[in-house]
Amino acid sequence: MKLRKKIKVGIIGGARPQPKFKDIAYQVGRMIAEKGAILVCGGLSGIMEAAAKGAREHNGLTVGILPGYSPHDANPHIEIPIATGLGYSRNSLVAMNSDILVAVDGEYGTLSEIAYGCIYGKKIIGIGTWNIPGVKEAQTAQEAMDLVWKEFFPLR
Amino acid sequence: MKLRKKIKVGIIGGARPQPKFKDIAYQVGRMIAEKGAILVCGGLSGIMEAAAKGAREHNGLTVGILPGYSPHDANPHIEIPIATGLGYSRNSLVAMNSDILVAVDGEYGTLSEIAYGCIYGKKIIGIGTWNIPGVKEAQTAQEAMDLVWKEFFPLR
Amino acid sequence: MKLRKKIKVGIIGGARPQPKFKDIAYQVGRMIAEKGAILVCGGLSGIMEAAAKGAREHNGLTVGILPGYSPHDANPHIEIPIATGLGYSRNSLVAMNSDILVAVDGEYGTLSEIAYGCIYGKKIIGIGTWNIPGVKEAQTAQEAMDLVWKEFFPLR
Amino acid sequence: MKLRKKIKVGIIGGARPQPKFKDIAYQVGRMIAEKGAILVCGGLSGIMEAAAKGAREHNGLTVGILPGYSPHDANPHIEIPIATGLGYSRNSLVAMNSDILVAVDGEYGTLSEIAYGCIYGKKIIGIGTWNIPGVKEAQTAQEAMDLVWKEFFPLR
Repeated sequence: MKLRKKIKVGIIGGARPQPKFKDIAYQVGRMIAEKGAILVCGGLSGIMEAAAKGAREHNGLTVGILPGYSPHDANPHIEIPIATGLGYSRNSLVAMNSDILVAVDGEYGTLSEIAYGCIYGKKIIGIGTWNIPGVKEAQTAQEAMDLVWKEFFPLR
Repeated sequence: MKLRKKIKVGIIGGARPQPKFKDIAYQVGRMIAEKGAILVCGGLSGIMEAAAKGAREHNGLTVGILPGYSPHDANPHIEIPIATGLGYSRNSLVAMNSDILVAVDGEYGTLSEIAYGCIYGKKIIGIGTWNIPGVKEAQTAQEAMDLVWKEFFPLR
Repeated sequence: MKLRKKIKVGIIGGARPQPKFKDIAYQVGRMIAEKGAILVCGGLSGIMEAAAKGAREHNGLTVGILPGYSPHDANPHIEIPIATGLGYSRNSLVAMNSDILVAVDGEYGTLSEIAYGCIYGKKIIGIGTWNIPGVKEAQTAQEAMDLVWKEFFPLR
Repeated sequence: MKLRKKIKVGIIGGARPQPKFKDIAYQVGRMIAEKGAILVCGGLSGIMEAAAKGAREHNGLTVGILPGYSPHDANPHIEIPIATGLGYSRNSLVAMNSDILVAVDGEYGTLSEIAYGCIYGKKIIGIGTWNIPGVKEAQTAQEAMDLVWKEFFPLR
């Protein structure tokens, strides 16, 4: 176990997504786990929960950076819950702790995380999300993750 | 003096704007002061400084919510500097402490403040800024401030 | 009005103090106002409210740095409420934004503010509060404020 | 692997401790690992590094909640670094994310973490640290950890 060296992929998206986006988030989570990367997210429901479920069901490690005071607020698929008590200001920390971000669907919270991702110089891949310069669009989980891995393993 | 009752207008925008946007920001600051409202901003340079200058030169009160540890980081037109030590996460606090937001130009930091404004249910008027649902566009400082005051004094 | 140059005296203390400490806090607030300094506090009840009342009833300016999301949470004597949404982590900001701190009574929240005051290199005067190296003890509001002013006007 | 269920022991203490306290911190870290608990700390040097070293050399999991923006700031024994960008205000998060705290030596930063531990209702065991009501004193690493485990496994 050398967790410190592993790539951290942040997945951002809203708490109330359409079902098709939850499926995509699940696949993203699965692929993060299969590659041995760590999934970072906001720890709550919707896209965050679907992706964490996909990762955990494929033996991945999941970190959830929570707005509230209690680690118990995390969805059941979060292995490492981090409470912050910062409310929405924790969105900044989700972007900060990811090597790259995948945005799926999402509302204004996701928009703030995309903005922080850009501020912190992170690459962002988007599926059905905000159309912001700096976000590379993908149509499927597979396409998104191909773009993610290309950043870290460019020669393959 | 009953500062507590005064309207707080937040002005958001980048540290390195085009000159024409600094002029607009100055006018916005002037009009905030002339109406007896309080200007809230991020306290640093560019749009924040131009607007604070406009407000101060017309006898207005200016609050700057700063990313760093020292109130002395504020531009010279900030009367009430508030240090946070939160870095970019302080963007959330700028939106939180404004009754309404005026976005002028702006980069990703401004985008995060627009997103937080929407999260916190604030009206946002934009001049040459991000085109985000929820942001009402205006072309001039006058037009922007007309939209602002209409929110608070609807019958005039 | 050149608020930026004014001395900021932070007053820290608990929400549920004994009556005698509320009286002392009121006197501290009064003396801050009479000297033309700005009172900074956590914006809520108990010591914070008593001191802000003392300052406001003597025409002083009061800043309240709040744990919650709404400026309306501030006690009625706060003129400049600053919402943070940081919960107890806002205690750090109260110390950061004060030039000097006066601690009156207080529980663990006050202890955290004393610790932050020491971290940020602020002088701290204490009345009936935690006995921590770095806190100068005073018995009365008058004695405490004499120690405060001596820091800023040493020759008088 | 069911990390979510594991006990999290926070270890707090300064960056510049006396050597004997670093030895104690190392032993505390070792014992946390041997019991299968997770070590939580501020992720930097001194007590934090010694304890994390003790845990890692005995196959434990270490979480470091950092003041800066970069996970790379963490000492080499931190497996899960969490960047916050909050500066000293992150001390609140170290206490929040621990089920129980062990304070070893320590200066004002440690005092703030003890205060937050008390605010958040955490038990605190102290070795050569601040004498604060609510902190149970221990003389050795073994004695401290006996007190820790008694909280979670009272019948043994």
